[in-house]
Amino acid sequence: MPSLIPEPLEALTVAFGRLPGIGPKTAQRLAFHALIAPREESARLASALSALHDRVGLCPTCFFLCDNGRCPLCSDTQRDGTILCVVEDPLDVLAVERSGEFHGRYHVLGGSLSPLEGRGPESLHMTSLETRVAAGDIREVVVATDSDVEGEATAHWVADRLGPTGVTVSRLAHGLPAGGSLGYADEVTVARALAGRRPLTG
Amino acid sequence: MPSLIPEPLEALTVAFGRLPGIGPKTAQRLAFHALIAPREESARLASALSALHDRVGLCPTCFFLCDNGRCPLCSDTQRDGTILCVVEDPLDVLAVERSGEFHGRYHVLGGSLSPLEGRGPESLHMTSLETRVAAGDIREVVVATDSDVEGEATAHWVADRLGPTGVTVSRLAHGLPAGGSLGYADEVTVARALAGRRPLTG
Repeated sequence: MPSLIPEPLEALTVAFGRLPGIGPKTAQRLAFHALIAPREESARLASALSALHDRVGLCPTCFFLCDNGRCPLCSDTQRDGTILCVVEDPLDVLAVERSGEFHGRYHVLGGSLSPLEGRGPESLHMTSLETRVAAGDIREVVVATDSDVEGEATAHWVADRLGPTGVTVSRLAHGLPAGGSLGYADEVTVARALAGRRPLTG
Repeated sequence: MPSLIPEPLEALTVAFGRLPGIGPKTAQRLAFHALIAPREESARLASALSALHDRVGLCPTCFFLCDNGRCPLCSDTQRDGTILCVVEDPLDVLAVERSGEFHGRYHVLGGSLSPLEGRGPESLHMTSLETRVAAGDIREVVVATDSDVEGEATAHWVADRLGPTGVTVSRLAHGLPAGGSLGYADEVTVARALAGRRPLTG
């Protein structure tokens, strides 16, 4: 039935469908919405998309996002420069910040090791991390990569690479998520929660 | 925490968040994806959005979508011009076409009556429907508006408005959906399925 749908609408459906998590049905619904909604709404989305790559870059030190060359994390003098949190991508920085419990600096690797998807060590910002740690001010590196297979492998690889510098390397705790029900937790989560158990008294 | 996110990324997140069914979390994920994905992908979506309103319009006869002024439904000479299917919006035309069981022509109302949302009779393409029916060639109008409250009210209103023309007005059947389990059907669906029961033999 492609002949019934005008080509520009089809093109927009295809473009929406390339976004992650947007299936063919949702893509069609979004494209129809764009057609029916006020023209300004589509214009605003189009110009935001166009401006993005020209105006947002990565900080040359921590690889978080920066606008006009100024990184909000690296330029914040209130932060503790002796502790570094290593994450996979910029969204992870926001997650750690939301906890309100970390006041050090960050290093964004730019992904995880995944031989299956062709992401090797050279695709990560690891050399720059070694350089930062070797510079001497840092006493602890908290590895906060995801707790999936790739994230775990990446965490161990980061620890190995930082071994020669003598810095303390730690890892975020694993266990039951807040509000999580034990009855519905998967076996790996329960096993990790058991292994990481801590004394309640004493 | 808005200060951590560069303004162009925030603007894109807001623009994505205005799309129907896209919540704040999904909007942020889409915006980050656009940043990480190849620049051409965002460029393609931006240009598809920009081209849309200039190149896609509504057919002046049936109000389905048309590209360059040519409606694929009205210009199809194989279709039966004596039966007309009245739907709320262009996506509904595609749904009826997918069934493969309707070979007549369409009339897209452009929505449903909804006093609560401020959509009154003047917002629908009703006068043009009356004109088409009054022109004389049409023997039956199948009202295929949604089976929600607004769609039902709109169906009855369409039937009332077409009363003076003497045309036969019918309504799509209501009942259990194909593959639907009776045990999980809601009470209104079951009530309608009972009311619309048909003899199996004879």
